Amino acid sequence: MARASLRENIVDAALERFHAQGFNGCSVQDITEAAGAPKGSFYNHFKTKELLALEALARYREESRMGMLFEGDLPPVQRLRAHFEFLAERSEGWGFTRGCMISNFAADMADDYPVMREALDETLVRWSGAVASLLRQAQAAGDLAKDKDPDLAARFLINSWQGAVTRARLTKSRAPLDDFLTCAFELILV
Amino acid sequence: MARASLRENIVDAALERFHAQGFNGCSVQDITEAAGAPKGSFYNHFKTKELLALEALARYREESRMGMLFEGDLPPVQRLRAHFEFLAERSEGWGFTRGCMISNFAADMADDYPVMREALDETLVRWSGAVASLLRQAQAAGDLAKDKDPDLAARFLINSWQGAVTRARLTKSRAPLDDFLTCAFELILV
Repeated sequence: MARASLRENIVDAALERFHAQGFNGCSVQDITEAAGAPKGSFYNHFKTKELLALEALARYREESRMGMLFEGDLPPVQRLRAHFEFLAERSEGWGFTRGCMISNFAADMADDYPVMREALDETLVRWSGAVASLLRQAQAAGDLAKDKDPDLAARFLINSWQGAVTRARLTKSRAPLDDFLTCAFELILV
Repeated sequence: MARASLRENIVDAALERFHAQGFNGCSVQDITEAAGAPKGSFYNHFKTKELLALEALARYREESRMGMLFEGDLPPVQRLRAHFEFLAERSEGWGFTRGCMISNFAADMADDYPVMREALDETLVRWSGAVASLLRQAQAAGDLAKDKDPDLAARFLINSWQGAVTRARLTKSRAPLDDFLTCAFELILV
């Protein structure tokens, strides 16, 4: 019981530290210290730092609420906007620090950690898929032009959003997120 | 003379190592070793690792050929496409490793290194400005709808491109760059 709770503390601390400092920017010791756990206990719970990062990513995915794309009664285009608004407000709440953990791990790990690379890619494939499904509904409702490819548009939107979030870390403002919202919805709407 | 050349070797090695491993992913020692320089010589040439990273960024900017947006006789939309094609081919030449040094430094340094943050932001402001100037020419030529804001569209395109390049590190393919080219030019063209 105590061990399970220590493990949870380590994952909580990892989510926070990896997001704030990146995979290479913090050590196992930084994380165990933040968790109030003895450094020696780390390898009782995790075989590698990468495996801990994969758990932190799974937690980050849950907190990013992709599920809200499928919830509620709003029309599809409004549901999509509400999702990005939620993410924009979360960024604002962090003072435009941290960015998106997916892009951060991509920058630190894409070339050297194939398991993480695959997990990140799969996360974005799933997220794009959810957006594409909303765009198909929008198309059926006449809100997306018939000649647009919902899958292509969804991939483009998700990648563009990632770029906008990284940019907001540099401007320390909502401006890049608002640029995204304006242009993305101009692109989508008939 | 020997010292100047040693300094150049360190900047060359830093450009390569920072791009491949990120700011936090390589040490001063990794860079001096790659440069064939004694570690002790580093601080004769650079006060801090951040100052070296700023020089590497300046070199990266030159190699990214923003200037080509203003060169040659092609019509503005074709010049813009040729620029992104150049960058896409460069990514392909690296086997879709490394990504864009601007985004990588943003992920590693945006929150903790204010001088770098400002240099990265300014780099993207200048790049967007160059694209906006081409888009204004395109608008005058009737290739961009009159109701589009060239500055907004340029900022959106640059941020979207950054996201696409990061994504290509995950897919290890041109697909995200091609998605960008398709959607960006649909967005632009009347």
